Amino acid sequence: MTRPPSITRIRPCQQRAVVLLSGGMDSTTLLWWVTRHLRVPEVHALSFRYGQKHARELTAARWQARSAGVAVHKVVDISFFAGLTTGGGVALTDGAVAVPALRAIRAAQRDQPSTYVPNRNMILLALAAAYAESHGIADMYYGAQSQDEYGYWDCTGDFVERLNDVLALNRRKAVRVHAPFVGLRKAAEVRIGLQLGVEYGHTWTCYRGGKHPCRVCPACVERRKAFVEIGMRDPLG
Amino acid sequence: MTRPPSITRIRPCQQRAVVLLSGGMDSTTLLWWVTRHLRVPEVHALSFRYGQKHARELTAARWQARSAGVAVHKVVDISFFAGLTTGGGVALTDGAVAVPALRAIRAAQRDQPSTYVPNRNMILLALAAAYAESHGIADMYYGAQSQDEYGYWDCTGDFVERLNDVLALNRRKAVRVHAPFVGLRKAAEVRIGLQLGVEYGHTWTCYRGGKHPCRVCPACVERRKAFVEIGMRDPLG
Repeated sequence: MTRPPSITRIRPCQQRAVVLLSGGMDSTTLLWWVTRHLRVPEVHALSFRYGQKHARELTAARWQARSAGVAVHKVVDISFFAGLTTGGGVALTDGAVAVPALRAIRAAQRDQPSTYVPNRNMILLALAAAYAESHGIADMYYGAQSQDEYGYWDCTGDFVERLNDVLALNRRKAVRVHAPFVGLRKAAEVRIGLQLGVEYGHTWTCYRGGKHPCRVCPACVERRKAFVEIGMRDPLG
Repeated sequence: MTRPPSITRIRPCQQRAVVLLSGGMDSTTLLWWVTRHLRVPEVHALSFRYGQKHARELTAARWQARSAGVAVHKVVDISFFAGLTTGGGVALTDGAVAVPALRAIRAAQRDQPSTYVPNRNMILLALAAAYAESHGIADMYYGAQSQDEYGYWDCTGDFVERLNDVLALNRRKAVRVHAPFVGLRKAAEVRIGLQLGVEYGHTWTCYRGGKHPCRVCPACVERRKAFVEIGMRDPLG
């Protein structure tokens, strides 16, 4: 099996872990990697309703959590968040802003695409760390990966490392974020997932959330490329 | 006027700033310091309902925001947070846990007192940073101060500095947290506040939130000591 590089040393024999589970490919692969490869017996999966335009991701997250047999799956409603960032032109939460095609993002050469949600990942990780800390769980898994096609600053190894530097100050119980796929391209990640038996037909990637994937948004394009690269067919077509 | 040391350089001529305003002494003093001493013309104050047992703090926050003439005061409801940390024995949010007296905390010599809310401050700062970023505001003020009597790890200069190291990675718009009182004792802070005309009768400090301050919880003890130290009378008695 391809061995994903890890930017943080993973403690041996973890008994419990928190996994951030969006229902997309990255976090789903991670969930199965933690339950099947690391064999952590007690996994707490956390999903967030943050004002996404559609809830297909969450349906996928529920399916995967049940299928992987996690101990706890909690969907936390932080949809107030959309109101907090209103006016920022955030495509994933603001009804007035359309999700752009990847080519439009590239053409605009923006610092961050409009699919970027301001500081969302730090918020989700901070909430998950609060959950982990109050439940006495030391390890937390985050499905960031390196295919930085459209440049999210909060999906990088640097980001995870510096966040761990903050959390390490906690004198009570330092929670550590692990991002084992952060050095991996999406194709390599899918290869790992398929070896673990992940059913990608029950993940949701498209930013638009129609009946079928739109095939043009950044997430769809990357997903298709990953399957093509390893010569496999995406079960979502 | 006593000049508070700052752990972060404050940009000159700020036009806009976000202030985290709980309605306690620290953040209220900070609000007046930002509006009256720094003279930032457009202040956005953010308060959070995070499942506190009482809402007296928020009433104080509203009074102070109005009185200081901020441009925006937003109270963000994150009371789901109490459910996320349930079982962690958090005195400020869990109805089953009593707020301890300071002497009990000292006697127990715990790593963090039960009045500590797991990772709350990182969550509030991450949310405030999302707000600031999406509104194009670069500077954020946090009323942490150094009187580390009962040891909150997330009220220290190190914490703020490392959090800024994370935020600095943002390629779109790096928001910076300023904690000008982090090196200050509470008495010095109150002295500054009184010079700025802060009405401490409209702040709320007691963790218990009865009709009158309880005078025995850690927050009450520190508040009283601060006023005694500078030879002033606390308007709350």
